[in-house]
Amino acid sequence: MGIMIVVKIGGVEGLGIESLCADVAHLIENGGQMVLVHGGSHQTNVISEKLGKPPRFVTSASGHESRYTDRETLEIFAMVVAGRVNKLLVERLQGLGVNAVGLSGLDGRLLAGQRKSALKIVENGKRKVLRGEWSGVIEEVNVSLLRLLLDQGYTPVIAPLAISHEGEMVNVDGDRAAAAVAVALQAETLILLSNVSGLLKEFPDESSLIHSIRREEIEAYFPYAQGRMKKKLLGAREALEGGVGRVILGDGRIEAPVSQALAGRGTMI
Amino acid sequence: MGIMIVVKIGGVEGLGIESLCADVAHLIENGGQMVLVHGGSHQTNVISEKLGKPPRFVTSASGHESRYTDRETLEIFAMVVAGRVNKLLVERLQGLGVNAVGLSGLDGRLLAGQRKSALKIVENGKRKVLRGEWSGVIEEVNVSLLRLLLDQGYTPVIAPLAISHEGEMVNVDGDRAAAAVAVALQAETLILLSNVSGLLKEFPDESSLIHSIRREEIEAYFPYAQGRMKKKLLGAREALEGGVGRVILGDGRIEAPVSQALAGRGTMI
Repeated sequence: MGIMIVVKIGGVEGLGIESLCADVAHLIENGGQMVLVHGGSHQTNVISEKLGKPPRFVTSASGHESRYTDRETLEIFAMVVAGRVNKLLVERLQGLGVNAVGLSGLDGRLLAGQRKSALKIVENGKRKVLRGEWSGVIEEVNVSLLRLLLDQGYTPVIAPLAISHEGEMVNVDGDRAAAAVAVALQAETLILLSNVSGLLKEFPDESSLIHSIRREEIEAYFPYAQGRMKKKLLGAREALEGGVGRVILGDGRIEAPVSQALAGRGTMI
Repeated sequence: MGIMIVVKIGGVEGLGIESLCADVAHLIENGGQMVLVHGGSHQTNVISEKLGKPPRFVTSASGHESRYTDRETLEIFAMVVAGRVNKLLVERLQGLGVNAVGLSGLDGRLLAGQRKSALKIVENGKRKVLRGEWSGVIEEVNVSLLRLLLDQGYTPVIAPLAISHEGEMVNVDGDRAAAAVAVALQAETLILLSNVSGLLKEFPDESSLIHSIRREEIEAYFPYAQGRMKKKLLGAREALEGGVGRVILGDGRIEAPVSQALAGRGTMI
């Protein structure tokens, strides 16, 4: 049994899926055990537009921009992440000899948690509460289902949906889902890939890459995180607090992105 | 361990999904073991239209109408069946306490077979060969993956995709997929639900329902099968030849459709 690595990747566009899957196949052939968690927000936006249901973005009371996920948006999100991104990844991995099994967090209650059914937002300078939200926060991972599959040589590929305590489907953040999975499996390494080279001191200047962060000092780095990188740092902190060996914020745009992250490219925490 | 029943249902529209899932939950609570296989062609057509890629139907050389599945259509089909129909079913079952796990035939090479990459069709009275088809015929079922899940109390819910020998995703017929799964599990009963009451002697006159068919005589009944019912009879024959105890062509529109089929409503073969 090799070391356990959990890798979070984006959707299938932009980041080089062929290169990523080839790298994953290579590492698994050489004895690694891996679980992949993916996103799909960008593709969901594209397909939502085409279906005449453009995404609605809102500003939270704390100043973050986020997508408002009503039930219709949730169902489109599920369709895209579990039916498109997930299956294209599984197909590619299978073609490379990796016996991938695509799951969403709904399946077997793999990812369970609390639904957030209302958002506190700011609109035209006024605070208001937006109801009918279908997102959630993961509280439990069905690790026995993951182990059952891993022990038989399958590689789980997970779409970022979860199931609420009331048995409803909800969308969840992929980075934090990957962190929850890494904690549940007590992974040696969690790699969060994105379309930048890691955490940048002066975003978007890639020469300002921060090569390593001591885990005690992670708080001090939150001010450098722009946009999506905030969720990645949050995920990283959750993973480390939960017992994951190390977290690497890696570059998803390069050849062999997982191997390169393991070799020290990116921001190591 | 209860008796093993494989049930094929349509998409989530039309047939009463709530009633169906409640019935499945009831049977599982009472010790039944079940695998569900579903379709989704109708929903794929609806979403394809909305995405500006209307389905193309062709007439085969043998006179059947079928959908031409080019790569783009395949990817829409995958998105709808594995990401929409499958996840809505899993959500509903989970809400009823059934620990459902949604899979497609791609996952873990659950359904593997031969890709049919060209269709022989008749167009404007002329025979021609249409290339770039992405459908397939199932030749192998990864029964160990199904048993692994069933033995741990999970209920597999399967979307009709398969993986070709070359590692490509292909679409497959849901009725024949259900038959292949029933054979692999040596199920006691295969139930194929549809939006009619069973095989009708004079379609669409429901009073002409054929209540039972002796398995040796199934060939004689093919002439009565209209449209989709042909594939169901084909699936039924494959299942019985493969050792399945019995096949029931049941009515998916009624309350408790699985229990009623088991109690003798529909066409029993």
